[in-house]
Amino acid sequence: MTVSAGRVADLLPRVAALCAEYARAIDDDRLEDWPDFFASPCLYKITSAENHRLGRPAGLIYADSRGMLTDRVTALREANIYERQGYRHLVGLPAILGETDDGVRADTPFLVVRIMRDGAMDLFATGRYLDVLVEVGDALRFRERVVVCDSSRIDTLLAIPL
Amino acid sequence: MTVSAGRVADLLPRVAALCAEYARAIDDDRLEDWPDFFASPCLYKITSAENHRLGRPAGLIYADSRGMLTDRVTALREANIYERQGYRHLVGLPAILGETDDGVRADTPFLVVRIMRDGAMDLFATGRYLDVLVEVGDALRFRERVVVCDSSRIDTLLAIPL
Amino acid sequence: MTVSAGRVADLLPRVAALCAEYARAIDDDRLEDWPDFFASPCLYKITSAENHRLGRPAGLIYADSRGMLTDRVTALREANIYERQGYRHLVGLPAILGETDDGVRADTPFLVVRIMRDGAMDLFATGRYLDVLVEVGDALRFRERVVVCDSSRIDTLLAIPL
Repeated sequence: MTVSAGRVADLLPRVAALCAEYARAIDDDRLEDWPDFFASPCLYKITSAENHRLGRPAGLIYADSRGMLTDRVTALREANIYERQGYRHLVGLPAILGETDDGVRADTPFLVVRIMRDGAMDLFATGRYLDVLVEVGDALRFRERVVVCDSSRIDTLLAIPL
Repeated sequence: MTVSAGRVADLLPRVAALCAEYARAIDDDRLEDWPDFFASPCLYKITSAENHRLGRPAGLIYADSRGMLTDRVTALREANIYERQGYRHLVGLPAILGETDDGVRADTPFLVVRIMRDGAMDLFATGRYLDVLVEVGDALRFRERVVVCDSSRIDTLLAIPL
Repeated sequence: MTVSAGRVADLLPRVAALCAEYARAIDDDRLEDWPDFFASPCLYKITSAENHRLGRPAGLIYADSRGMLTDRVTALREANIYERQGYRHLVGLPAILGETDDGVRADTPFLVVRIMRDGAMDLFATGRYLDVLVEVGDALRFRERVVVCDSSRIDTLLAIPL
């Protein structure tokens, strides 16, 4: 269902702010806050554009509850892999695609730079977030966040949230 | 002519949304939708910062009608060059520079990442859009879009819209 | 002090526009305009995430008056180092962190691409701006701008404003 111009004007700043806050939590290494961006139940997955286009299951990360998101953070902290590098997200302007009883659908481009411990930087990932957003109290939360990476060659160490 | 703060507040979200939609159409490979972002008549060109500063003609792409834009898409589809790689635009916040009877002038920074078929990513282009925007019905469209690339070393395969 | 949703809605477009104008002045090589983005007195420094986290003094650039900012521009023009390369900033959405009598605190992510004279591009810096903003007349200006670079390996030629 398409969304009226007035509704878009209302939603757009809120969706943009949520996406920015989400990125900031990851880049600030506040991973423990990450599950709080999601509604319950939720769906989170990371896939490639090719897998997404072909309808193949997400190969990288799949979580269908906030508990699974929390478990992932715990695992990351124990593995300590994440400590070795930093990330910087740049997030573009969301496109509000529609709204149904299930929530608001949005499509938001992103780019992530990785900063290695020795200071080297590289383009880590680009892609788009395909989101379904719902109101929880007076805040927007992700019912679904499907991270579609443009490249199918994604670092096998990829374990951090995107 | 300078633009009042109120007029900027009205225009800015619309110009930003148009720039985002334009980028999304290209990144989604919906090239056939690309000419629809332009008014008729229109001017579209890609040049380098150096050529632009020196007032030299655009060396890369020049089109002064929507028909030429459509022809370019047809040529791209036939050459099939575009299929081999993907693009991801990140677009910054527009600056609204002025408004005359000819339209609204805006200057918007961008960055494009290219994703090769094997998954390799590189910085493909950065620069700014120098736009003249007009109302067509109740939508904004590009009367002019001059793409000024920061680097004068642009891939000679460059044939996709930026 | 936290900021009400209404106040954020008022501030956010203004802070975003200021950050965009600031970046545009640098990328357009209008360095002489750069000190005008600051209130007087002001604080400007460039540091790394590691130095910032450890509370170490900024190693790269430190200026605590607009006169020092102007001196830096003069030095850059005389050294002519800046002429050899260009920059392109992409700035993300600011987060409004709080407001006190000292001003509005904001945190804004950025990415800078460097374009060498021969056309080569590289990721020059990523990080975040930690700003304190105040009203000067009816415009927002930086009381403080602390540029926290993600990487601690920053080009020793770094002399341009970020």
